[in-house]
Parts: sequence; C-alpha cells; structure tokens
Amino acid sequence: MVKLLRINMKKRQYKFEDLKPEYTMLAGRALTGKIMLDEVEPTCNPLESKNKIIFANGLFVGSTFPCPGRLSIGAKSPLTGGIKESNVGGLAATRMSHLGLRAIALEEAPEEKDLFVLVISKGKVEFIKASELKGLGNYETVAKLMERWGDKIATLSIGPAGEMLLAAASIAASDLAGRPSRHAGRGGLGAVLGSKKVKALVLLRPEEPEQEPVNNLEEFNKIMREFIKILIPKKKALTIYGTAGLIGITNEIGGLPTKNFRFGCFDKAAEIGGERLYNIIVSRHGKPTESCLPGCVIRCSNVYVDQAGHYITSGLEYETIALNGSNLLIGDLDKIAQIDYTCDNIGVDSIEMGNAMAIAMEAGLVEWGDADGVLELLREIGEGTIKGRLIASGSTTAGKVLGVTRVPQCKGQGFAAYDPRVFKALAVTYATSPMGADHTSGPAIAGRTGWDPQKNYGELTDSEGKVELSRELQIMISICDAFGFCYFVGPDRGVMEVVVKALKAKFNLDFSFEKLVQYGKKILQNEYEFNARAGVVQSNRLPSFFYEETLPPTNKKLDFKPDQLQKVIDFVKSP
Amino acid sequence: MVKLLRINMKKRQYKFEDLKPEYTMLAGRALTGKIMLDEVEPTCNPLESKNKIIFANGLFVGSTFPCPGRLSIGAKSPLTGGIKESNVGGLAATRMSHLGLRAIALEEAPEEKDLFVLVISKGKVEFIKASELKGLGNYETVAKLMERWGDKIATLSIGPAGEMLLAAASIAASDLAGRPSRHAGRGGLGAVLGSKKVKALVLLRPEEPEQEPVNNLEEFNKIMREFIKILIPKKKALTIYGTAGLIGITNEIGGLPTKNFRFGCFDKAAEIGGERLYNIIVSRHGKPTESCLPGCVIRCSNVYVDQAGHYITSGLEYETIALNGSNLLIGDLDKIAQIDYTCDNIGVDSIEMGNAMAIAMEAGLVEWGDADGVLELLREIGEGTIKGRLIASGSTTAGKVLGVTRVPQCKGQGFAAYDPRVFKALAVTYATSPMGADHTSGPAIAGRTGWDPQKNYGELTDSEGKVELSRELQIMISICDAFGFCYFVGPDRGVMEVVVKALKAKFNLDFSFEKLVQYGKKILQNEYEFNARAGVVQSNRLPSFFYEETLPPTNKKLDFKPDQLQKVIDFVKSP
Repeated sequence: MVKLLRINMKKRQYKFEDLKPEYTMLAGRALTGKIMLDEVEPTCNPLESKNKIIFANGLFVGSTFPCPGRLSIGAKSPLTGGIKESNVGGLAATRMSHLGLRAIALEEAPEEKDLFVLVISKGKVEFIKASELKGLGNYETVAKLMERWGDKIATLSIGPAGEMLLAAASIAASDLAGRPSRHAGRGGLGAVLGSKKVKALVLLRPEEPEQEPVNNLEEFNKIMREFIKILIPKKKALTIYGTAGLIGITNEIGGLPTKNFRFGCFDKAAEIGGERLYNIIVSRHGKPTESCLPGCVIRCSNVYVDQAGHYITSGLEYETIALNGSNLLIGDLDKIAQIDYTCDNIGVDSIEMGNAMAIAMEAGLVEWGDADGVLELLREIGEGTIKGRLIASGSTTAGKVLGVTRVPQCKGQGFAAYDPRVFKALAVTYATSPMGADHTSGPAIAGRTGWDPQKNYGELTDSEGKVELSRELQIMISICDAFGFCYFVGPDRGVMEVVVKALKAKFNLDFSFEKLVQYGKKILQNEYEFNARAGVVQSNRLPSFFYEETLPPTNKKLDFKPDQLQKVIDFVKSP
Repeated sequence: MVKLLRINMKKRQYKFEDLKPEYTMLAGRALTGKIMLDEVEPTCNPLESKNKIIFANGLFVGSTFPCPGRLSIGAKSPLTGGIKESNVGGLAATRMSHLGLRAIALEEAPEEKDLFVLVISKGKVEFIKASELKGLGNYETVAKLMERWGDKIATLSIGPAGEMLLAAASIAASDLAGRPSRHAGRGGLGAVLGSKKVKALVLLRPEEPEQEPVNNLEEFNKIMREFIKILIPKKKALTIYGTAGLIGITNEIGGLPTKNFRFGCFDKAAEIGGERLYNIIVSRHGKPTESCLPGCVIRCSNVYVDQAGHYITSGLEYETIALNGSNLLIGDLDKIAQIDYTCDNIGVDSIEMGNAMAIAMEAGLVEWGDADGVLELLREIGEGTIKGRLIASGSTTAGKVLGVTRVPQCKGQGFAAYDPRVFKALAVTYATSPMGADHTSGPAIAGRTGWDPQKNYGELTDSEGKVELSRELQIMISICDAFGFCYFVGPDRGVMEVVVKALKAKFNLDFSFEKLVQYGKKILQNEYEFNARAGVVQSNRLPSFFYEETLPPTNKKLDFKPDQLQKVIDFVKSP
C-alpha cells in the first residue's frame, strides 16, 4: 500500500504512515489541500514552523496514462497568504511512486541555522547537514548532489531565493537529464521549503522499484493505447514549437502582455515566437522537443543552446517568454533564455519575476527593454541585496515599496501571460481561483473556447459564457491536478471519460463523469474553506485599471461585476 | 448646521453638504467609519482613486469639555488593508469647527502628477498647485505655507513618505505653536493623502469663527468646571513627566519592549525615562509641559531642545521613546529626540519605524543600539532609496523582504510599546481590534486595571479577566474617539457619566450609559463589517513567538486561545 512519509524537521524524525482510509482516493492537489485543511493552522505565518509543505503524486503516476507524473506541492503560500498548490514535471513524482510513496509531508522547522539535505530511500530518510550548499544556485546544487549520490537521483531543491525566504521562490525538480529546470514556481513554495531548512530532497533509485497495482492491467493499457493514438496528432503544434507557439496566437488575438499589460500586441512578437525559437534551436543543434517527465507523449519542452552549442536553458516556455519578453519590451530570445536560466538557478518563479521586473521598470529601476538590467537585477537576488530581495518578494510587494499601483495581480500573485481583457475566461479564473492569478487553474487560452463540444461559451474574447466556462474548467483542472497528469492532455470532457474508464480499470472503481465533477468540486471547496479560515478574501476583483483602461489594439476592457463572478464560487460550493 | 465638505480631487470640485439625518449624531471615528462603510468599496486598492480619506471632528469640539479637539482621520489602510482611524491633536479639528465643518471627505485622485495644497476657508476651497513643495519635509512645508498664508493657519500635511505612497506614512497636524509635530501616525494614512496628490490642507482662520450651539450653555460649563477640577489632580504625573513617565513603570513591571520584544526590561531605562526627560528639558530651558490642542488641561506634551537651547522636537512621547529606545537598545534621549524629529519631518509613524528598525537590526542592516545608523536610514526614506522605502513600508513588509519572521504585528501593523505577555489586556486588544496592534484601541496600561471601580479584572499581568477588560475598553475608547476627546481624559465609567450629562446639556439628548455603550459597539460593528468585506480576517492571533517564548525577567508568555479571544468580537456584535 502506498505510504505517506511524514518528516519532522524540528525533531529530525520520520515515519512512513499508511494513508488514512479517507485519503485513499486522494492524490495530487486533492491530497495536498486536504492535509492542509486538516492539519495546518490557516492563520499561521507561512514561514514559521506551523506551516507544512506537502509533496503528493497523482493517482495515475507510473502508469501508461499519458504524462502522468506531475508532482503537486502544497503549503500555505507566503505570496498569497492562502492555500497553494503548484505542480511540476521532472522525475520526482515517478521516483516517489517507485519508493512506494503517495506523499511526503514536511513538518515543523529546526531551531538551529543548519541547512539539510533529506536523502530518501526505501523505508529510510537521512538528514544530512549541508552547509557547503548554502547560497548555491540550483544547477550547482544538483551537480554536487549527483557527485555524491550518483546521477540517477531525482531531486527537489531550492536556490538562494528559497533560503532567503523570499515570497517568489520556487522549488526546482530535476528533469530526465538531471537538470533542475522544472519549477513549481507559483506561490513562493521555495520559501516554505527554505523555512524548514531543507536545501534539497534527494530521492534515491530503489533496486526494486515499487509499482502500484492495476486491477485490470490489460484493459488499462488498451484504453491508454487508444487514447494516446488520438492525443498525439492533436498536440502536434505543442510538440513542434512547444508552448512558445502561443506567442504568435496571443499576439494575433491582441492579448499578449506588453509593457506591463499596457498593450496586447508586441512589434517584435515574431522575434520571440515559437517558429523563431524552433529555428534557433534547430540551427544551433539544441533540442527543439523534449519530455519533461516519464510517460510524456507531448514533449513540449526543449533545450536552448548558444551559437557555440553550449547549454543556456531548458524548458523555455510561453509564460516566461511573454512576461520577460513582450511585457518588458525585450525582443531577444537569447536574452530571455538567459533570464530563464538565471531564474531557474536562483530559484524564483519566472512568471512572478516578469511581473516584478515590470514594476521595477515602472519605478525606473531598470529601463524598459533593458535585458542586461533585468539579468543584473536577477543576479542581485542571488547576492541578497535589498533591491534583489525586494524583486524576489514578488510584484505586489515590489509595487508597495516602490509606490507603483499598476500591479497586475490577484490575491497578491502576479498575472500569467494572458491579458484578461481579451482572454475573458482567464479574467474570471484570475479573479476567482483560490490560487490567485494562475492560468493553469482554469485555462481558456487561444484555441480553447470550451471543454465540451456540446456546449457553446461564445467567442473567446467576449464576456458572454465565460463565467460558466471558467468555473467548469476550474473543476476539470482540479481533477487533472489530483490525478497528476499534465493539463496539456486536456481538461476536456473526452479526457474525463477516459479517466472514468481508467479508474475502473486501475482501481475497479465505478466512477461516473458526474461523480468526477463532484470530486473536482470538493477539491475547490476545501481550498475555499482554507482561504476563508486564513482570511484570504474571495473578492472576485481584478485591479481597477483592467476595468478602466482599454487594451490596444482591440480596445477591449473588462465588464465583469464581482457578484457575477461570485456565481463561480456559488456554483462550486453547491451540492 | 455643521457641514460635510466633499472635495473631488479628480474634478477639482467641492461641495458643502448638510449632514444626512442619520449622520447628525455621528462624529470622529463613528463618522469616518460610517462614511467608509457606506461609500468606499472595501476591496479597493487603498492607494487608488476609489479610496476616500475622511477628516472628522468630535461632538464636543470647541466646547469646554476637556481636551475636546482631536481629529479623526479615516481611510482604508495601505498598511493593514482594513479600515483605519487614527486621531491626532493639534489645531485642525478646532479650526474645522470654526469653519462650520464636522468633516471633510477627500475623494478620487487627479490623473496628472501635480501636487496640490487645498486652502479651505468659509464656504470655499482653493486648489493650489504646489510643485515647489514636492519632496519637502513637514517642517519646511509648513514654514512655506505660513509664509504665504500667515502663521494663524492650521495645517494637515505629508512629508516625502506620503508623497511616495509608503505604507507607514503619517499625516502631520500643526500644533498650537504652528509646528507639524502632532501625527496621525498609524495605518499609513499619509500615503492615502499622497495618492490624492494633496501635500497639505490649509485651514484659514475665519473672521467670525462659528460656534456649535449648546442647548444649555450654563449647565454644560458648570458640569465641565466640576469635571475638570477632579480631572487635573488625577493627571498630575502626566502633566509633569508626560507619557515618558511610563518608561519607569513598564520597565518595573517587565513589559518594556527591549531588543525587538526579546526582554521586558532595559538596563538603560532610567536614561530614557520621564524623570530624566524632565530634568534634561528643564536644565536646557525647553518646555517640559505643553498642550497639544485647544482646551487641553492635561498638557502631557513637551518641547525638547539641545544643550544650546535649540529646538530638536516636540511631543516626545512614551511610544516613540520605547520603540526607538529600549526596543533598539538605544539609551540616549538626545538621539531619540532626533529620531522623533526626523520621523515627524519625513512624515512616518514613529511607532511603525521603531518596529521596522528592529527588523532592520535583526537583518543586520543596522547594528543594535546604533542610533546614527537609524538616523541615516530614516534620512534614506526622505531620499527615496530602496532601503529607505522598504523601512517606510512598515515592519511586516520589511520582515517579508528581509527574511525576518520575528515581526511583532497584528493585521500587518507593528506593536505599540507594551509587551503583550505582560500587558495581558493589550494582548487581547492587539489581537482583536479591527485596527491592528493599536494600544489606543483598548489600553490597559500601567496603573489601569479596569475602567469601572465596581468591577474586578484581576492582576494587570494575569490573563484572567482581560478578555472582558479589553472588550469593554475597546467600546469605551471608541466613544472617546467619536466624541473627539483625548483618551487621557479617560475611557472610564465616571467619564462616560459626564458624557451622558454633557449630551443632555449640549444637544438636549436623553442618553443613558447603556445607550452610550450601544453607540460604542455600533462603531466597532461597522469596522468589523468593513474589514470582513475587505477580507481582513479576524484571526484573533498574535505572532507565535509570544506564545512560545517566555519574556525575561518575569518569564511570562501568552496563553489566550483564538476562540477565547473571539468572545470579544461576539460580545461586541451582540445586540
């Protein structure tokens, strides 16, 4: 039976527990949220010992379900003050399943200043003092961990930003090539890990990997073979261009964040878009396409190299490119790739950094378009200067200190790279998600005008139908996040029907689509409940300038009323 | 009839309105809170145009009631995110009454970058562009205003911190000698005024001052003569030593904040105490005692001069001395007086600064006890450096950015100068007040073990009885704040009985003590309601280290449970 590993960082003790009966069918985001709600004092300071950080894999991890190995990481967020789940690719979730673990819960904090590496093997946790890793970036950290424990380890680590407890700090997961390039970026979870004095978790490869039993393996694999056959051709654009292919589309629609969300188009969009990225990578013999986790069939990731063919970064994605490119008026992919690497190495969320750098530019700390200035300021984070710390505290805090009120944020978290005046369903998601302004919480992006072919939610850029679309997507996504599969597989009706069949084949469970929806609603209900107790208000508002300023060139603005958006919450809370 | 002056800063228009019938008996904090609740969108960004800032005087302003001229200033706070009322002495409230004004409501904000001075005379408001005042400290600002409009004006002004929208910015009120030394310090209201682009309000002296009618003037004055006769001898210690006399007492009890609330005693307490302050001032021919507002009979203020007899500061008070003295391990009154002056001039709350400087010391930016380092950092606020801006954003934000979790705060506002482990009723007030950690919201300080001689609330430093004491004091104080009299007159049963008689004599109103309590409860109920809508949680918690660490030398700690403290709220909300 899969276990919950509890690690107490104050006492340096651990315990492999059976899952409580009511947790058996909870995984990923459903499990991190439930443990938070059951065990964490909602009003605690997120950086003090009462907070917990939970790593939980999904119900299909290690199976032939496509892209099944995302790891949910949950804690009370130092950025939003509310509940947070951020999920990440890489090797960790799959390795946890090989070690027989559904989840790891890190509790309390050491009273001393020592930094630890937790080395986890089957039935055992070692607490290794690691002062030699203090202040190191993720790349150097993981290199040193691999020197000592071999290159077959899976790692979860923090950079200096997490050690400094900064609210935009991320947690890096090593990818299939052992690079710490996959990040649970949003919500500052790296700071929570830092507050536990954990520099890294090292997951050793067991001699005999455990495999979760599948009730009807033949049937399960048959369903998956058929599913993947349909899935792969549908995802072709993602496979070729990665998520960067979105740049051209969002620019075309007029919703590409440009100059701190002042414009919806960028005159250098083509220079930072998917085709350009693909051509650069291919011409320099990088890797235009790569899987970020075991079992991925979409392969939207990539390896970006310089003209000499040397590694710059990997997993260069749309969000990073848009928020650190067009949004800062930077039109140079080489520079953006360096920004991405620096964020990954220092251990900060590249989305939050794009937003915070825009605030720095509003305040005149860096000139608009000055990529070297951005890189310099990112390096200051690593050095722990006040300016660096301020930026790595996120866009809301940076705005507060710098006297900038134009901060695109919800619940204290900076926007993802979709202007809500054009991507209307995302406006609803940003405003109502318990997570703050996450796109992954309910994405209705280019091309996605629904999740159910039988329903009509109106034009992408119209308000009509978007309250309904967002609330339904939020439910579907919470299901993806609980089951641990990548949301590029799709928060779609068709996918959910595959999930229903998969649950039958794997667990012999009779789920229906309706029951699955109830499961998803319960995840959100628990998150609302935690936030209510923590005092994170469900204000359903976006910053006022999105209502007051039109967005060139489409000249759209927002017109959702808070009580209209409240219907999302009411619907999700309804039985 | 007294008027409400509405000033729209976007349109540069104004209107003298009659008070709505339901506002007639509302004044001070009761009125600022009610207007906020009725008119301000609770989830608005406090520094954007939808916030309002309300100046309201009390029901007894301009009368012979002792110390009746405090001005309540209310807005949504950029520090706490909730409702705020901060009241201040000086000349402004009395001058407003002479101009026939109960209140001024500043609404919206200019779209341009110009800075304004609002010159208010009878029936008229002038909007004067004032770019020459940009960046000036309060002292120089008021000197320039007096050059132009004469030394009989009353002013309300902000320093550079308010202009920079920093969350610890204060609003200075000129005192009876025309010095901007009285501050509405708490909650960052100076930033709200700055967001309206108002550098100062200048209240001209009318040729014929208006006088609110008193129904039975002879009776009113007779009640007051008798009251004042009893009051003056009771306040003798305050008159001689000012509030600084508290240093010796809180040190003796073991609740004087020392080294960021690590200790309850300071080895140099005598060097910063009331007697020492008195002796220095007398020996240098300063003023050991002074009124801060018209009609003050207590005169706890002072004028502090250097050895050559030159002015350093005025109104040097206990809170400033303790938080910038013992709490920072600074044992030198000359330095503390300079810190006080610098805070007043830059326009920042000296309480919040004492807390924020302790955070800077925790982070190693300034050495413990280094007064010159503190002064240098205060000057950096005026210069607008990142470090300066960070400190003037308050202790909570400073802690967040500097990675310091030991922040004594509630609702994001730093503690007043009473350790809650010893001053148990203040623990309850800090945790439960809608204002955050204000001592004035419900003060049970040295000597005050109750407010009603017929009731017993146990020993000052015991938890027993303190939930009841705090909730009752919070109600009494809200009455003082609404009626505009200084809380040193006393939130006592005896005083409330005088208030009942005064209401009869002035307004021919039949109030009872019980009805007065209902009036006070309603003020708090409105504030809870605003906060609930704004999403400021009533968590009833203090930072965890007050529960976990004992306080030397008494070795006391906190043991209140959140649900025990919730009784305060439940009681106030009860009919």
